[in-house]
Amino acid sequence: MKGEVKLGILGGGQLGRMLMQAGLDFNLYTLVLDPDENAPCKDICNEFYVGSFRDFDTVYEFGKQCDILTIEIEHVNADALEKLEQEGVKVYPDAKTVRTIQDKGLQKEFYRQHNIPTSDFILLKDKSELEQRIDFLPAFQKLRREGYDGRGVTRLTGEADFGKAFEEPSVLEKLVDFEKEISVIVARNEKGEVTAFPVVELSFHPEHNLVDSLFAPANVAYKLQRHAIEIATRVIEAFGMVGILAVEMFLTKDGQILVNEVAPRPHNSGHHTIKANYTSQYEQHLRAILNLPLGSTEIQSAAVMLNLLGEPGYDGEAKYEGLQEALAVPGVYIHLYGKKFTRPARKMGHITVLGQSIEEAQQRAESVKNVIKVIA
Amino acid sequence: MKGEVKLGILGGGQLGRMLMQAGLDFNLYTLVLDPDENAPCKDICNEFYVGSFRDFDTVYEFGKQCDILTIEIEHVNADALEKLEQEGVKVYPDAKTVRTIQDKGLQKEFYRQHNIPTSDFILLKDKSELEQRIDFLPAFQKLRREGYDGRGVTRLTGEADFGKAFEEPSVLEKLVDFEKEISVIVARNEKGEVTAFPVVELSFHPEHNLVDSLFAPANVAYKLQRHAIEIATRVIEAFGMVGILAVEMFLTKDGQILVNEVAPRPHNSGHHTIKANYTSQYEQHLRAILNLPLGSTEIQSAAVMLNLLGEPGYDGEAKYEGLQEALAVPGVYIHLYGKKFTRPARKMGHITVLGQSIEEAQQRAESVKNVIKVIA
Repeated sequence: MKGEVKLGILGGGQLGRMLMQAGLDFNLYTLVLDPDENAPCKDICNEFYVGSFRDFDTVYEFGKQCDILTIEIEHVNADALEKLEQEGVKVYPDAKTVRTIQDKGLQKEFYRQHNIPTSDFILLKDKSELEQRIDFLPAFQKLRREGYDGRGVTRLTGEADFGKAFEEPSVLEKLVDFEKEISVIVARNEKGEVTAFPVVELSFHPEHNLVDSLFAPANVAYKLQRHAIEIATRVIEAFGMVGILAVEMFLTKDGQILVNEVAPRPHNSGHHTIKANYTSQYEQHLRAILNLPLGSTEIQSAAVMLNLLGEPGYDGEAKYEGLQEALAVPGVYIHLYGKKFTRPARKMGHITVLGQSIEEAQQRAESVKNVIKVIA
Repeated sequence: MKGEVKLGILGGGQLGRMLMQAGLDFNLYTLVLDPDENAPCKDICNEFYVGSFRDFDTVYEFGKQCDILTIEIEHVNADALEKLEQEGVKVYPDAKTVRTIQDKGLQKEFYRQHNIPTSDFILLKDKSELEQRIDFLPAFQKLRREGYDGRGVTRLTGEADFGKAFEEPSVLEKLVDFEKEISVIVARNEKGEVTAFPVVELSFHPEHNLVDSLFAPANVAYKLQRHAIEIATRVIEAFGMVGILAVEMFLTKDGQILVNEVAPRPHNSGHHTIKANYTSQYEQHLRAILNLPLGSTEIQSAAVMLNLLGEPGYDGEAKYEGLQEALAVPGVYIHLYGKKFTRPARKMGHITVLGQSIEEAQQRAESVKNVIKVIA
C-alpha cells in the first residue's frame, strides 16, 4: 500500500462520516462531494466539494482526482461512474451495479434473471397501467427511482387507494406476509473473496418506514440464518461488485426468504458492527475496495441498535437531552452525526447497546429507548 | 449537553488523533496546538494551531478559546493551565496534577506522601551528588523533567557508569527486581466516579525502552490484579484529577506491586481498548472530561497490541510493507497514525490482535509480529 491512497466518496452524510472515521486508521486521503455545505463529512475529510452527485460533469470532474471512488448513497450519476471506470479510476461499486440498484424495476428484474428469490412483481409505466391490474393488489407500489428511507413507497389494497398512487414509472410488488425483516451485509474484494456478517433482525418505525431498531444476533433458526447468508452471497456474486452490499430480506410465515432490496454501501443495518463485531461494516468496505483481505465478521457482543431521530415538532439547531441518563446504563454508546440542524424524523445519530446476551442488550435498550431526545 | 462543546487539546500526535476519532461520536468541536505543522491531528480537527505547548502565552491564548482543555502529552506549560483554570476554563487534568506528574521528583514525593507503594529513591540536584551515593546503586537515574518514551533514563550499576550519568536534576530510583510490568488505566469524572480497565501486561523493546507489545487480560493472579486496581484507584483519587490516568506498575518477584510512573492522558497501554473493550480509553477520557457517566471497561475479546515502529535504517516518506499478509490473519487490525515521515523507532501505528482467548490472540500476534514493516 502506498502511504496515501486518494479515496473519493460521493455523498457526505453520516455513512460517509463513519467510513472516514474507519479510514483514518488506514492513512487514507479523502475527498467528499455533497450538495449540502454543512454535510457531516465536511470537517473531517481532506477535501470537501459542494456539488451535486447526480450531475455528470460534477461527478466526473470530482472522480478524476481519485484513485478509488466509492459511494455512500446510490442515487449518483452512473454515466459519470462508467466514464471514470473507462479512464482507469477504480469505481467500487461499479457503474453497472449502481445503475441496476438505483432503479427498483431493474433491480427486481435482476433477481428474477438470477433466480434470486424475491416477491412477485410487475412493472408499471404509469398510473393508467395500474388501473388494469387491480387483480394484483394488495401490493406495494414503489417508484423505480429516487426512493429512500421509505419515501416513494405506498401501500395499495384496492381501488380506494388509487388517489395516493404514483404517476411515475413504478414497481408493483405483491404484499408479502412476512414474519420478520432481516438483513445480511456481505462484502467482496477484487480477488472475489466474500464474507457475510451475521444476520440482524430489523424493526421498523410504524410511521416513518425507517429502521427503528435492530438486534444482532437475530432470533432466527440457525438453518434459516445459513440460508439467508447463502442468498446474500449469491446476490453479491451475481453483481460481481467490489465493496459491501446490504441485503434486506423478508422471512415469510411459511419459512421462505425473499430478497426485498439491496444497498451497495454501508447501511443502517450495520451500524452496530462498529462496537459489536471484530470488523465493522465500514472497515470491511474499506478492506474490500482497497483489495485487502476481508476481516472476520465474528460477533464480540450481542447488540441492539437504535436510530436517534429528530423529535416531532422540533426544527432548528439540535440539542440532545437525556445523555446523562442513557450513558449511565452499562453497554450504551452514542454516535452523533455532527448535524447542526434537526427536523422531525431526521437521522441525527444512533445508539448501540451491548450485552453479553441479546436478552441483556434488549433489556438495556428498553431502558434507554425513549430517554435520549433530539430537540431544538 | 450543548450541540457543540469546544475541546482544546495540547499536543497533536497519535493520542490526540485517536481521541478525536472517538470525539466525532460526541459532536465535539476540536482545537489542537502542536509545534509540528504535519502533526497527525492536523487534518481532522476543526482548528489547528502551530505553536509550542511549552510556551505560556501560546498555551494561554489557545486555551482561552476552549470550554474544556485537555492534553495528550504532559510536557505542557502548567502556569498557563493554572491561569486558565482561574478564568473558568475546565482544565482536565488540572494544572496541579500536571505539574506534579511532569516532574518525576515531585511525582515520587507525591507517592511517598500518600503512602502509595513505589521503589525507594533519592533526589539529586546534579551529578556531584550522585558521586556521594554509590551505596544506592544499582539504580535508574531519571531526569526530573522532559523524559519521554525511554529518553532521559539511564541505568547505573557502579562508578564505571558515571560517564553516562545526567548532569541535570534527577531522581535516582532503586533497581526493582520485577517479574512483570503491568498497567492499569483508571478514569475519574467531576462527580468523583472512578472506573478501572482490567490489568494489562507490558513487554518492552530491549533497545528503545518503548512498549513493544502488551496483552490483556494479563497473566497475573486474580488477587494481584485486584490489588493493582486498588492501587491505581488510590493514585487517581489522591490526585483528585478528572480524566484518565495510566498507572504503570512493577510486579516484583516477591509479589509486591510498586507504582513506577503515571501519565494523565490516553496511553500506549490502552490502545487495544479501541477494539477489545466495551469502552475505549479515548471514549472514557471524553466521558470523564465531559462529566458524563463513565463507560463499562469490560473486555469483549482478549487482545495483544503491537507497536508499529519505523524500521532501523529508514528515514523519509513512510511506506507500509506486509499489510496484505498481516490482515489475512483473523483478528488483526491496523491503526496508522497519519505520519508522513518515518525514522528509526518512530511510533507510526499499532496493530491490535483479537482472539477468543489470550492464547489465541498471542498465537495470531506471533504470526504477524515481524510481517508489517515501515520503511521509506
